[in-house]
Amino acid sequence: MSRIDTLVLATRNPKKVPELRAILADAGLDVEVRGLDGYPDAPEVAETEPTFTGNALLKARAITAHTGLPAVADDSGLRVDELNGMPGVLSARWSGRFGTESGDRDSANLVLVLDQLADTPPQRRGAEFVCAAALVLPTGEEHVVEGVLRGSLIAEPRGANGFGYDPIFVPEGETRTTAEMTPEEKNAVSHRGTAFRALARKVRDLG
Amino acid sequence: MSRIDTLVLATRNPKKVPELRAILADAGLDVEVRGLDGYPDAPEVAETEPTFTGNALLKARAITAHTGLPAVADDSGLRVDELNGMPGVLSARWSGRFGTESGDRDSANLVLVLDQLADTPPQRRGAEFVCAAALVLPTGEEHVVEGVLRGSLIAEPRGANGFGYDPIFVPEGETRTTAEMTPEEKNAVSHRGTAFRALARKVRDLG
Repeated sequence: MSRIDTLVLATRNPKKVPELRAILADAGLDVEVRGLDGYPDAPEVAETEPTFTGNALLKARAITAHTGLPAVADDSGLRVDELNGMPGVLSARWSGRFGTESGDRDSANLVLVLDQLADTPPQRRGAEFVCAAALVLPTGEEHVVEGVLRGSLIAEPRGANGFGYDPIFVPEGETRTTAEMTPEEKNAVSHRGTAFRALARKVRDLG
Repeated sequence: MSRIDTLVLATRNPKKVPELRAILADAGLDVEVRGLDGYPDAPEVAETEPTFTGNALLKARAITAHTGLPAVADDSGLRVDELNGMPGVLSARWSGRFGTESGDRDSANLVLVLDQLADTPPQRRGAEFVCAAALVLPTGEEHVVEGVLRGSLIAEPRGANGFGYDPIFVPEGETRTTAEMTPEEKNAVSHRGTAFRALARKVRDLG
């Protein structure tokens, strides 16, 4: 029997709960996964840390403190080589007020990165998606794992799946963008999938 | 007598020529400085290199090749610690199409940096202005010098002098922004002033 029988995932996105549930089941674990739906008073945690790991820990600690249960939280983003690893932790708000004013923040972030790389030739357009996933136990024990997907950025968006920077990101060894892959194909290789599978192994090792 | 008696400064900004002229005179040098006004067919060089040094050399080489005279060119920008040294060489076009569309690119670049640092506390708001100045001789001899001004970024723009990011940049040991300093005060400490004074010493040493 696993030391952990219930996990709270720090998300209000209802799609993410079954995703983690499936990954834990694939790892042979019988763990109940809850989202924040049952915790309407759970704190909203601002992602103010300069690293993905810092933000994931910040969120997981807050949810463990609030619920008294083991909590999992993640933070993800795109590191662009030519931008010295930015947008990084700012991926979701890279275009600032321009994204807010445009009403489509994902598109604004994406076109801003494309404009910033306008003079950058293909051989310098390397990038990686990164996800840090943190597990915090009520005992104070903390674990963080990271998943990385290397690739490069194309100049014209392609594909309608995924979100964020997916339409311009082509993983290494692929010809399609992650927005042209099915959700299953993307999960099998993605930074988030890799991080959560590593986290599942961590949960199992704690058993 | 100096080996160099005429220099072409790779700029179409008429204010920059007397500035370099004065710096060379202060260094005790009798050198004629020309801008690109007399060279209407001089090539426009795109700043496609990932470093200030690379861009300054690119421009100086092109002007030396075109004029047959020693040429000086510079490239400058703002490196923000929290943005891993960006906007860097992209300082003038950081906001991409949002700056172009807004009609005031300087302001758009500045507010974008402010928005990207919205959650960054004062102790993490370090930044530096950097200027690389290159001197290329018709013989192929090349020299590059760099000037740096360390400081930090405030959250509310102040001052009407200068341009670009000046209204949010406070040099180390100062309380005013570089947009609140007179042009003379700014030149005495600025990245550009430092780089051009170092270049003047280089010209003198070649004499």
